[in-house]
Amino acid sequence: MYDHKYLLEFTTEVFMRIGCSREDAGAVAAVLIAAELRGHSSHGMIRVREYYELWKSGRVNVTPDVKVVHQTPSTAVVDGDRCFGMVAGIRSMRLAIDKAATTGTGWVATRNSNHFGIAGYYAMMALQHDMVGICVTNANPLVVPTGSVSRYLGTNPLAVAVPALQEPPFVADFATTPIARGKLAVAEKKGEKVPLGFVQDADGNPSDDPGILRRGGGMLTLGGDLLHGSHKGYCMTAVVDIFSAIFSGANFGPFVPPSVAYLPVPENQPGEGTGHFFGAMRIDAFRPAEEFRSAMDQWIRTFRNAKPIKGGVRVLIPGDPEREAEERNGAAGITLVPAVVEDLKAIAAGHGFEFREKK
Amino acid sequence: MYDHKYLLEFTTEVFMRIGCSREDAGAVAAVLIAAELRGHSSHGMIRVREYYELWKSGRVNVTPDVKVVHQTPSTAVVDGDRCFGMVAGIRSMRLAIDKAATTGTGWVATRNSNHFGIAGYYAMMALQHDMVGICVTNANPLVVPTGSVSRYLGTNPLAVAVPALQEPPFVADFATTPIARGKLAVAEKKGEKVPLGFVQDADGNPSDDPGILRRGGGMLTLGGDLLHGSHKGYCMTAVVDIFSAIFSGANFGPFVPPSVAYLPVPENQPGEGTGHFFGAMRIDAFRPAEEFRSAMDQWIRTFRNAKPIKGGVRVLIPGDPEREAEERNGAAGITLVPAVVEDLKAIAAGHGFEFREKK
Repeated sequence: MYDHKYLLEFTTEVFMRIGCSREDAGAVAAVLIAAELRGHSSHGMIRVREYYELWKSGRVNVTPDVKVVHQTPSTAVVDGDRCFGMVAGIRSMRLAIDKAATTGTGWVATRNSNHFGIAGYYAMMALQHDMVGICVTNANPLVVPTGSVSRYLGTNPLAVAVPALQEPPFVADFATTPIARGKLAVAEKKGEKVPLGFVQDADGNPSDDPGILRRGGGMLTLGGDLLHGSHKGYCMTAVVDIFSAIFSGANFGPFVPPSVAYLPVPENQPGEGTGHFFGAMRIDAFRPAEEFRSAMDQWIRTFRNAKPIKGGVRVLIPGDPEREAEERNGAAGITLVPAVVEDLKAIAAGHGFEFREKK
Repeated sequence: MYDHKYLLEFTTEVFMRIGCSREDAGAVAAVLIAAELRGHSSHGMIRVREYYELWKSGRVNVTPDVKVVHQTPSTAVVDGDRCFGMVAGIRSMRLAIDKAATTGTGWVATRNSNHFGIAGYYAMMALQHDMVGICVTNANPLVVPTGSVSRYLGTNPLAVAVPALQEPPFVADFATTPIARGKLAVAEKKGEKVPLGFVQDADGNPSDDPGILRRGGGMLTLGGDLLHGSHKGYCMTAVVDIFSAIFSGANFGPFVPPSVAYLPVPENQPGEGTGHFFGAMRIDAFRPAEEFRSAMDQWIRTFRNAKPIKGGVRVLIPGDPEREAEERNGAAGITLVPAVVEDLKAIAAGHGFEFREKK
């Protein structure tokens, strides 16, 4: 078990050693450790080495000039100058919040960025300002549009955070596909099949083979097949791609650069880097803040008290599992798998410091 | 076959006869006929009688005082005064567009409204103003949150319209559930079963019975079951409910009034009527308009040229099927089922005019 404060400090140190400012290194670390705390280790410390390799390959600028390239009272476009995604992400969301403070809402499209961790981190930044936060990003293309075998879409997540009064906030943060890619890798390592509805083969036939992506297969959109509404999942994932790329001038769909250094950057890219989109909406731009928050309490309590299915335990509010994980992991510490620990030790050793074995 | 211009004129007449102004009657008619043209007859002329009955039951105000109750430079809340949903819908979307013209984006939450037809109509209003349009609404509760047997959510549609340059616009307009309720009714009438993943029984078990809603069953969210991401569908449907109701002060989830007169209005409603949410975003608030439109052309062409699955024909862009239906039905006329024709004749006869048999 590792204390999250130690992991934050260590990770900040790693990114400072490769040339990031303290602020930028702290941004990267904060979002990665938030993912660990919230139980999404796929977006946590495992990424330190990936980001490190991405920097070594020359694809990340550790001294970026992140700047606003265009704006109106309620909108802006931010150019990340090939920064780590968190650096542009936190700046962009702050700008959205500032604009919302004066204009009611703020909307920022960001280009020339990289993988930015969990979308929910940025959406939740709005909560302390009495605002609703929204965040989407596009991602490596692995997902097929309905009726196609072309891997033209990412697992494109959407996060929405809504403040309540006495209840904890509503925080939805989800990939717009049935599963994350990581689940396929785990099943493959275990030698297991996956249920139908996750992937298809190179011809577009249903497949239960978790390794099919390496043989021309693709991941399916939410809904799984046309009969069960995969075209609606396609719409969702496409909307996220358009908001991330077309509003900002980043790369869309098949041209999004991979978040790992060992995969090549697509040729003839039409845009710049990866794209994100951020929104902040002041709740009192719609109703008195306390009235909005009370109504949200009522929403949350109503749904939390919905009747569970027979044999089920309780109905969850989006954000419940992550908040509970955060309390648990904050107190007990964070578990890292041995391979990640080895990576962290090696990176630290290469820069003349060390990753301490335990809390 | 009925000419759409005649249906527009006839429907306007119906709603004027019951007391709507010409403008309001025209708004109701325009959205219903747009649905027929676009191939969504479930939201078309079949609703004339439902709306008529809703008026007769006293649940719709045909001389409403639709007004803005709160606003900031980029936001507003509109009270529909129990109007037909189209009346508040068109006014609210126009207001969002006006705000976007000056502030970059406009966001309007609407309460005290009723069923408003196809969400895509409002989203598409933004296109001619060089804007992206967004529209959501909540709806009659028929859908269960993941892990629950409580029907607390509607089929809550989301529509997003994005302008292109030479290509027709991207128009996604979809219920955030695998199917519309109408499909269950059709299967039941035919005595057919439905595929698993559409509905569950009163205990929460998978069901293939299209009549299960009358026996305590519920419709499932997009994804179908937890394994296939139904919790992500639940998040989507919940977000639409919150934007429609909590921002505006309308009723949320289980309290949304039914869109048909023969179902009772829920007791102890926390809000006012049905809620909608509208957004307009000026594309040049992000990038020069022509640059944005060109990038969107490139997006559309890339996805349209994606490789079809083996044996498949082509990959669709959201909005393609509806646009093609519109061209077809605009030229050839609109087919109405006999029961709808009888309803229209009876309503007209009751008000001293007639529904002409054919084009």
